[in-house]
Parts: sequence; structure tokens; C-alpha cells
Amino acid sequence: MTDKLNLACDYNQGAHPAILNRMLENNLVKSGVYGEDVFSESAREKIRAACQAPEADVWFLVGGTQTNVTVLDAILRPYEGVISVITGHICIHEAGAIEHGGHKILSLPGRDGKISAEDIQACYNTWADDANHDHVVMPGAVYLSHPTEVGTLYSLAELEAISRVCRENGMRLYVDGARLAYALACPENDVTLPDLARLCDVFYIGGTKCGTLLGEAVVFPKHNAVPHFFSITKQHGAVLAKGFVAGLQFDTLFTDNLYGEIGRTAIAAAERIRQALRDKGYTLAFDAPTNQIFVLLDQAKLEELSAKVEMSFWDKPDAEHTTMRFVTSWATTEEDIDRLTALL
Amino acid sequence: MTDKLNLACDYNQGAHPAILNRMLENNLVKSGVYGEDVFSESAREKIRAACQAPEADVWFLVGGTQTNVTVLDAILRPYEGVISVITGHICIHEAGAIEHGGHKILSLPGRDGKISAEDIQACYNTWADDANHDHVVMPGAVYLSHPTEVGTLYSLAELEAISRVCRENGMRLYVDGARLAYALACPENDVTLPDLARLCDVFYIGGTKCGTLLGEAVVFPKHNAVPHFFSITKQHGAVLAKGFVAGLQFDTLFTDNLYGEIGRTAIAAAERIRQALRDKGYTLAFDAPTNQIFVLLDQAKLEELSAKVEMSFWDKPDAEHTTMRFVTSWATTEEDIDRLTALL
Amino acid sequence: MTDKLNLACDYNQGAHPAILNRMLENNLVKSGVYGEDVFSESAREKIRAACQAPEADVWFLVGGTQTNVTVLDAILRPYEGVISVITGHICIHEAGAIEHGGHKILSLPGRDGKISAEDIQACYNTWADDANHDHVVMPGAVYLSHPTEVGTLYSLAELEAISRVCRENGMRLYVDGARLAYALACPENDVTLPDLARLCDVFYIGGTKCGTLLGEAVVFPKHNAVPHFFSITKQHGAVLAKGFVAGLQFDTLFTDNLYGEIGRTAIAAAERIRQALRDKGYTLAFDAPTNQIFVLLDQAKLEELSAKVEMSFWDKPDAEHTTMRFVTSWATTEEDIDRLTALL
Amino acid sequence: MTDKLNLACDYNQGAHPAILNRMLENNLVKSGVYGEDVFSESAREKIRAACQAPEADVWFLVGGTQTNVTVLDAILRPYEGVISVITGHICIHEAGAIEHGGHKILSLPGRDGKISAEDIQACYNTWADDANHDHVVMPGAVYLSHPTEVGTLYSLAELEAISRVCRENGMRLYVDGARLAYALACPENDVTLPDLARLCDVFYIGGTKCGTLLGEAVVFPKHNAVPHFFSITKQHGAVLAKGFVAGLQFDTLFTDNLYGEIGRTAIAAAERIRQALRDKGYTLAFDAPTNQIFVLLDQAKLEELSAKVEMSFWDKPDAEHTTMRFVTSWATTEEDIDRLTALL
Repeated sequence: MTDKLNLACDYNQGAHPAILNRMLENNLVKSGVYGEDVFSESAREKIRAACQAPEADVWFLVGGTQTNVTVLDAILRPYEGVISVITGHICIHEAGAIEHGGHKILSLPGRDGKISAEDIQACYNTWADDANHDHVVMPGAVYLSHPTEVGTLYSLAELEAISRVCRENGMRLYVDGARLAYALACPENDVTLPDLARLCDVFYIGGTKCGTLLGEAVVFPKHNAVPHFFSITKQHGAVLAKGFVAGLQFDTLFTDNLYGEIGRTAIAAAERIRQALRDKGYTLAFDAPTNQIFVLLDQAKLEELSAKVEMSFWDKPDAEHTTMRFVTSWATTEEDIDRLTALL
Repeated sequence: MTDKLNLACDYNQGAHPAILNRMLENNLVKSGVYGEDVFSESAREKIRAACQAPEADVWFLVGGTQTNVTVLDAILRPYEGVISVITGHICIHEAGAIEHGGHKILSLPGRDGKISAEDIQACYNTWADDANHDHVVMPGAVYLSHPTEVGTLYSLAELEAISRVCRENGMRLYVDGARLAYALACPENDVTLPDLARLCDVFYIGGTKCGTLLGEAVVFPKHNAVPHFFSITKQHGAVLAKGFVAGLQFDTLFTDNLYGEIGRTAIAAAERIRQALRDKGYTLAFDAPTNQIFVLLDQAKLEELSAKVEMSFWDKPDAEHTTMRFVTSWATTEEDIDRLTALL
Repeated sequence: MTDKLNLACDYNQGAHPAILNRMLENNLVKSGVYGEDVFSESAREKIRAACQAPEADVWFLVGGTQTNVTVLDAILRPYEGVISVITGHICIHEAGAIEHGGHKILSLPGRDGKISAEDIQACYNTWADDANHDHVVMPGAVYLSHPTEVGTLYSLAELEAISRVCRENGMRLYVDGARLAYALACPENDVTLPDLARLCDVFYIGGTKCGTLLGEAVVFPKHNAVPHFFSITKQHGAVLAKGFVAGLQFDTLFTDNLYGEIGRTAIAAAERIRQALRDKGYTLAFDAPTNQIFVLLDQAKLEELSAKVEMSFWDKPDAEHTTMRFVTSWATTEEDIDRLTALL
Repeated sequence: MTDKLNLACDYNQGAHPAILNRMLENNLVKSGVYGEDVFSESAREKIRAACQAPEADVWFLVGGTQTNVTVLDAILRPYEGVISVITGHICIHEAGAIEHGGHKILSLPGRDGKISAEDIQACYNTWADDANHDHVVMPGAVYLSHPTEVGTLYSLAELEAISRVCRENGMRLYVDGARLAYALACPENDVTLPDLARLCDVFYIGGTKCGTLLGEAVVFPKHNAVPHFFSITKQHGAVLAKGFVAGLQFDTLFTDNLYGEIGRTAIAAAERIRQALRDKGYTLAFDAPTNQIFVLLDQAKLEELSAKVEMSFWDKPDAEHTTMRFVTSWATTEEDIDRLTALL
């Protein structure tokens, strides 16, 4: 609550004003509970339309970790594990929630936060070719993030190849779209919502990091792919009694393409920051065109900037350098960028 | 969204206006994430003060089932079960979430939604006196709701006796306060927040059913009773990235005793409905003085009322009668009550 | 290891001599590991033949609790519970293993250790008729023991009715045959192995309590009803590296119908004890025709007998009386019975 | 059951004859159940003496995976993971049992099947130094195998350093001794049972791979380190009703140091095979002095040998070579070795 410039993350402010205003207008409306309300129903219809997936089942859960645990538990058999790049959110920043739910993560090194169809096929083959594979965790699903945790993007061709490998080997494909708005709005991105619906067994459209107070929209393109999914969410403590709180927010995000606008605002801000960094000779880590900017700082610059800007620590590639992260959002202002640029 | 009178539950509208307004005012404030923000800190201090428990650890989770699963998982060892009355929320309406988390519920019949110290002691003795009790689930905790699921209240004397039995036998006492505001505001109630802090190992102060959009405040009166509770909540998918969304709401509830006011509004409305029912000769089920009203209807009256009022079905004691439930809240209006009275 | 007469249970001695001898003869044979050995294969063929179930999958696990947990975990979806009589082994004497595995037991009072098709249908209807049943644990399977924990038997007609209710409502039927030898050998019994194979989705043929050192044979009459069941057993720590130790024992049990002979020996011994008790005017509890004898003793007789015979405590119906249990087995001798008779 | 020479593993034959004979002699003795029998008690005393750990709690479980799952579940809090070398048995050949039990394995590359105190400290520091470590799995225990899965040994100095790191950082140390007999009998080994008792929080003395039909002896050097461990084993389906079957076997193993003799027989056989391989110019993989011999074969030799000897596949370092494994045991004969030598 100081005046210090804060670019540390995309979930440290409330909701896009359009959402809060709509919430205020409808505050006393009694529209139904547990997600069976008119706002959620309307949001579902809009999401089905945006995904060109008229049969899709759409569920609104609360947060990312909860969504990952619940979805993976729903789509995996007990003896199956999930393949993920080692930098995947489920591997490192969910306090072991996936394993707590009973499943091993088969982690692969990958490159730039991504794994390829070849990596996945090789991992599957290691299992399939093992004469004792009944003693080994069977790969049952693939987890990807788009954009990834380091801000990179899968191309449509990459995603199609991955989807093919999954289907050929009986694995389900799950895409974590915690920051999906920032992929969809990115000029470098060629993966659309209908592509995700066509290629995935399940994916989620992120709310929390893309302008809502909370909420993630889980999309199963095929109707009833997981029977009794409501009970599964209930069992995981993932049901909002006031489900309309999430539904209304997604209904607003998918009205007049607010989701697109939010993405474009953040991407434009990120691009201006990247340009300023390049102009001043900084080294950017990762080829990350989305709303996260990773920059290499030497010790002196790190201390200088840290005093004036909230950033997040990423890693320490060597004793003299640190990779720090700036993040933009729907709420990043011109003034924020100007202040940062002046400090670089 | 019709004009039909709706008294079905206390979680079908948004938040108390004071909460939404405060949210709007602070929408762009960057105050911290994952519950480490100024609003949550302020709310914690106010709750500690209200509970006269200066050492208490206070955590904000999202919903009731999630809270029950997470807390019970945190306080029970794997081989321990939890004692509950059979009508307890965890027994019937949480889709088996407690068992999904690995723990048996030792359910007791009880009376009027309550169990007594004697019931609990007898259940414990059954285990303790069994020569093979290493093969039997050990009672590790007691779960109570206050008010109960049928709107009844524990007296302070009852709660003190239960607390004593728990402490004498090494069991933890956990009170589910999903509707705690409606107990605290009830003239018949003699259990205060400081009493709960003194007598329980952990309890929660309900938000969702008491005027917030979401959120339950878990109070461990003794500091660090469960080490690493944050990681436990994270593992259960119970952490809000925007933790301030819950913190700010509880901070508002505990400012100028809004929580008390919300309770009193609902209790006054419930009392007027109960009086109207009594005046017209209806039979009330349960001696339930809180914000839920259970009324016995014959078939003709049930059909007539159902066409005009949303109520909730409770049970069917015999072929000719049905018990239905009306629920009041912070948002119940004089007009609602007048409309209902006219229909009775 | 005293000379005190011991009739406390049917698992306090080694294996039927025919089994130990065969084990000794084949001790150095290298026949395969993890259950893929010639003894296990031979045992499987004999069990398929005895069950008239040529397609059956047969697996050898180690003990009863392990088998119950593993099978129920394999046949239930996470949101499903299992219906059982309240005296069922899984309800009381497995230290909460089923709940530890994530599933609620929907316990019914029953009569004489049994539940009926009507009880099961009513329990299912309670779920099905509940408008909020997505919040409630769905009955997914029925657990029966044959003989039951109190030595009673299901009739074929009862079992057929139960099987019908299960199939009509999409529930799986699982029969725990920990003491199956003693049912099959009982004149009052009209349920055969082919009946079990026809009526159940899965059942197990008990070894530990019927003459082996350890081991239970799980039979899925329909091939591949649970894909990757080996991995599920491995995950539950239920795989014997030396699987032939179980396989060879079952192969012996099903050679020249040793399983039948073991049953008949125990039933004849039990019948002689029951007759002696009746002759001397004792009251028998339960109409239990199998190898467990439940007798009501007054305090004086209890103390007198306890000094000379190891029995097991069952329950205490009133202050003056105690129900005690004698158990016979393949190893009960004429001398044991004579000694007991002399003491009564 | 062919005459083909079989050196594939150390668990494909029955029990050491001394064990089977003793079982036969005591077959009808009624000594107690569920591990509370005179044989188990005697075995416990002998193990305590051999470990110079008079306070130790000793439990007999059935198999290795079961033991690993049960012990780790007992010593870890839900939010804790276990550090293991990536080639550890729990990482690859237990079908995900540890994760099924809710815990992440923090796997480290290591060298020759081992990890060092430095590796472990570095892994711990990664967690401790992470500002967001509440979102990350906390290392709670270290899992080692001695001998390792590739037949190598920890030195006493290495083990002492690891134990120190564990204690300094609040982690428990658990040693899997599935093949412990073969370490203890090895001239290169300087780690004794009293060392293990002094340095570990818990370890197990392997039976299945060291001459018993089944059974692993879990040793907690400190009394009551895990309260109610019996109930935990029961819940995991790890209790043998006829616990004396395991107890008697361990009692025999620890009588007249049969365990030592079994180890020496296997090590002498392994050493003769290694010498024969070296003499004939084969390349051995790993510096593995215990009862597993890893040899590099070219394609022609692989095919030739495979036709005449059962070995186990280990890995395929390049297109032309395969690493195969021979394993010796208490039952390996001079004739076996002569036959193999003739074939090399």
C-alpha cells in the first residue's frame, strides 16, 4: 500500500471494473446456487460459442491449484501419472497437491518451459517398452500450460502434434490456461479457443490472473467426458455455494470480448517494457512474448531497482546475475510503464 | 430471477453492501497476495480481539466443505476418525469429502442435530474398552456445528462439558460456524466468540452464509497448533491467490460489528416468520431459534405455497406431511416477510 | 504355547499339512515371480473350473483387509461409496482402511449380520430421490460377507435378489469370502462358487482363515473388468514378490477338493460343539450354522471357562451376560471338542 | 521349471531350508495372532540385540513396496516429500505407490545409485532458500537403499554425513534394506546393524530377497517414535493375521546368525561370477560388490547367453550393447556358477 511501483504479478489487484460494477448491479438478485444460476448458464453458453464447442461441459472452479488437482484426479485412473515439463506449475508451486491427490508427475526437462510431441512420445515409449511396466507409473495424461510459466507459447503445429501423440497412445491432453488471455492476445500466438477445444480433452480458461477476483473456467469439449464431475468438485472442496460469483465474472469476461481486451492491454504494456529494456541494453531471458518479462540484472542494478520496484525473483543463473520478473495485467497503466522506464 | 418470493437459503445473493462498497473502493490497491495483505492482517487482528485470543492463528479459506476437509486433515492423524452427529454437514452433504481425505466419520444419532458430552464419552469408551481397538478407528476429534444444521444451539454448559470430555481423552474439538452470526445474535444463545476460543482447538467463523461473497475464517486459538498450515491449505487447493478478497470481507464484517448486525437482522426476520406461523396454527419442527425455520405442511398447503414461495425441502415424516425450510439472512426484507405472511 | 485349550479363532495355526508339504517339495523350484509362475497359473485354471467361469481373472493377494481396500478402490469411482451392513468387517475391524482409501461406507443396520435386497434398494433410493444428490455420496457397490461376520449365511434366493438390485441400479456386487470354505461345506448353504461367479462382479475365496499361511484369491468373473489391476495391487503394496507362495497354496486347496475337506472338518467340529452346548442348556446367539459358535454365558460360567479355554469376546448384551465365540477350523481335533465338552 | 540356468533374481525360490523346517515343526502351535506371538516376540528381541538397540520397536510387514509406503506415510506429514536418488526403488518400480499415498518424491540424479550428504543438503537448501517455500514440497525425509538398486554400498562415513544433514535439518532418515544381508556380508561394507540403528530414524531388514518366503522387519530404534504404528499398518493392509509366519522366519534368520550365512553364500557366489567375467574380459557396470552383477554384453553374446541363462535386462547404453544382471542368493549353488562360467 506504499507508492512503490509494483509489477510483481498479475493477481495483486481486484477485478476489472466492468466485473465489479456488474456484481454491484446484481448484488441482490437471487439467481440460483451451486453454479446452477442464470449468470453461470449464460457464461457457459458464451464460452461454448467462443470455443465453437456447442456440446462442451463448462464448470467454474475457484483457483488454479484446485483446478489442476480436481481435473487431473477426474481424468486419471489411480495407476496413471501425468507428464509435465519440470517447470510446470503442478511440479513446483502447488505444494505437492497432485501427489497429495495420489498421482505421480512424470517430469521432463523440456526447453523454454515447453515439452514437444517427441518428448512425450519418448516418455510414453519408456513406459510401453519396459517389460516390467506394470510396476511403473503409466502415463495417462499430458499437462501443458499456455502460455507457459516462463511466458512462452506453444505454436498450433506443436499443439497439434502433441494432441496427436496423446490420442494415438490413449493419453488425455489437459491445458492449464491460467494466463490464457495473454496468449490469445499475443500477435505471436496462433492457437485459438476453438483449437484448444478441438485438440484438448480438457482445458481451463484462467480468470484469477486475467481480471477476475477469482475463478477458472474448466472446459470439457466433449459432453459428459467425466460423469458426475460436480460430485468430484464437491469432494475436492471446489464448489462455490455462491457459484454465481464466478459465473457472473466469466459472463462479463465473455461479453463484448472483454477477455480479449484485457489480454491486449497487458500485452501492449509488456511489449513497451520489453522494448524499453532492449533499448537500454538489458538481456531478456526466454523468448517470452506474453505478459511476463524476464530480465537479467547484475547485482548493482538489482539492488538499485529493488529499492524502487516490486518485481519477483526468478532464478540466479550465476553468482553475479539474477533473473527478475515483471508482470503486466489488465490494470497496468501508462504511468506504471513510464515510471519503470525512467528507472531502468 | 422471477419475482417469486425466495426464502430457500442464505447464500443466494451477493454480499452485504458494505462489503461490496469497500471492495470497490479498494479495487486497485496492491496490498499483497496469498493472504499476506494488509486487509487480511487487519481482519486477523480484529478477529483475535473479538475472540480475546491474542495468540490465535487466523486463516481465510473459501468455502465450508473445503474448510472442513482441510482442518480435519490437519488435526487428525491418519488412523483417527472424527465424531459427528449423523445430521452433521460433513456426514451427508459434502459428497464424502472427509472420507476422500482419508478419515472415517464416527456418526452418532444425537438429538435435534446435537450430540452431548455423554454421547461423545460413550463413543470414545467403545473404542477405548475394545481389546482389539488397534483394529478400530480411534476417535481423534469431535465435529460440532453451531448453530446446527437444523438450527438448534449448544448451550455454554453443553459446550463446556464437551470440551472437557475432549481434553480428558486427547481429542480435538472443532466447531463449524458456517452460520455462526445467527447463533451469536440469538437471544437464546450464551456461547460467545471468546468461549469458542477458550473451549475449541479450532473453529471457523462463517462468511458465505453470513453476508460475504465467499470465505470462512478458521481460528486456531493456540499459535502454531498446526505447523505449516499454509502448505496444507495450498495442497488442498484452498488458497486464494487474491487472498485480500476474503481478508477485506472479514475485515469489514468485524468493523463496527457488522457481523453482529447481520445476525440480528436475520434473527429478527426469522422470529417474525416463526410468530406468523404460530399465529396461524402451523407446527414448527425442532426447537430452532436461529435463522432457519422448519415447518410441517400438509400436501395441499405444500402445493399452494410451493407455487408462490421458494423454500427448501427438508424431509417427509409421513405420507401426508412434509417438512419445509425457510431461511432468512442479512438481506431478508420487511417486504419479504409481509409477502410470506400474506400467503400462509 | 500353553496347554490351554484354544478355540479363539481360525487363523492361529500354520497351514494345512498338505500345503506345507507341497511347499517343501517345491522349495527350490524357480517357477516365476510376481504371480506369473506355474503354480499360480495352475491355481487360476482350477479356480476358473470350480467357478465355471472360464474367462475369470484371478489374483492372489495377501490378506483380507488389503483385499477389501484394493478391490473396492479398483471398482469404485472417487465419488462412490460402498453399502455394507454395520457389522461388516470393513465397517469395524479394518482401522478405517476403506476410508483411508477415500471411500465412505454407507452402513445399514441389517439383521443377523446381513442386509437384504430391500435394504439396498432403499439405501439407493434415498440417494436417487434426493434432489441434491450430487452433494451426497453415491452408492457404487455393495459389500457382503459370506458367511457373515456372525457366521450366518445368505441364501441363494437372497443373493440373487441382491444381485438383481445391484445390476438394475448400476452398482457392483462384491462378496468377501474370508471364510468361504465354511459356507460351502455347510448343509444349510445353497450358494455355490458358480453362483458367486454368476451373481457377483468380484468376490474373494479366503485362504488365511481356511487353511493357508496367507493369501486370498480375488475372482473377477468377467475378463478385464478392471484394466491394469496388477498395477493397482502393486500400488497398494499387495503384490507378493514370491507370488508362487500364494499360488502354490491355492493350487493345493483346489486339488482333490482340499478346500471342501477343510470346510467339512470345521463344520463337523462346530456342529458337535453346538450340539454339546444345546444339550447342556446354553443359549446360542445368532442362527449361525458355520464354523463360528456364539454362546451366551453368565458371569460365573464366563470366569470358569475363561480360565481353561481361549475364546473370543463378542459382546455384552446385558450386565449379567456376555456373548463369547468359539471358532473351529481345518485343525480342530476330536480331542479339542472332547476337552471343551467336558468343561461345559 | 525348465532346466535352464536361472540367475535372474533373488526372490524366485522358496525359503532357506532352516526356515521351512522350523515352520513345519511349529505348524500346529497356537502362539498368538496379528504379530503378538512368541515367535515374533523372540525375533524382536534378537533383532534388538543384533542392532544394540534395546528400546527399538520392531514390526514385521509383508513386502518391500508395502513397507516403503507404510513407513513413509507414518513418518511424513502430509506436506512433506521424501528425497531419493532417481534410481531408487520407490521412484521407479513401485507403480507410484508413494505418490498414491500422497507424498512427492524429490528425486536427485546421484551417482552409482547413491546420493551424498551434499546432494541432500543442496536439495534441502533449494527449499529453505526459496522465499515462496510454503508453496513448495518440504523435504521431510531421506530414502536410501543399502545396498542400492545397482548393488553399490554406502560407506559408514557417507552414512554418518547423511545422518548429520538429516538431523541438522529436521529430516528423518529411512534406509531400505531389502537386500541388507548382502551388504552386511560384503567385505567392502563397513556399515553394521548397530550403525543403522544409531544413524537412522527407521530402517528395514529385508527378508523376501534374503531367504524368507516373505516379510520385512521394520526397526524404529527409538521406542514409540510413531505412536499407533499398528493401526497405520492395519490401514495399509500390511498386517498378517498369521503374523507368526513372518515372526518365525525372522526368528530363524537371527538364530545362529543365519542372516550372516545367507549373505556370505550369495556374496561368495557373486564374487566367483565377477571373477569369471573379469577373467574372460567382460566389462562390469557399476562398482557393485554385492549380490547383483551387472555386465555389458554385445548383441551376439546377449543372444547366445539369453538362450541358455535367465538373466534380467537392466538397460541399453547404446545400440550395440546391453547391460544385463545376474543375481545370486542363499540358494545359488556351485553347480550354477560352473554352468554359467562354462557359457561365458
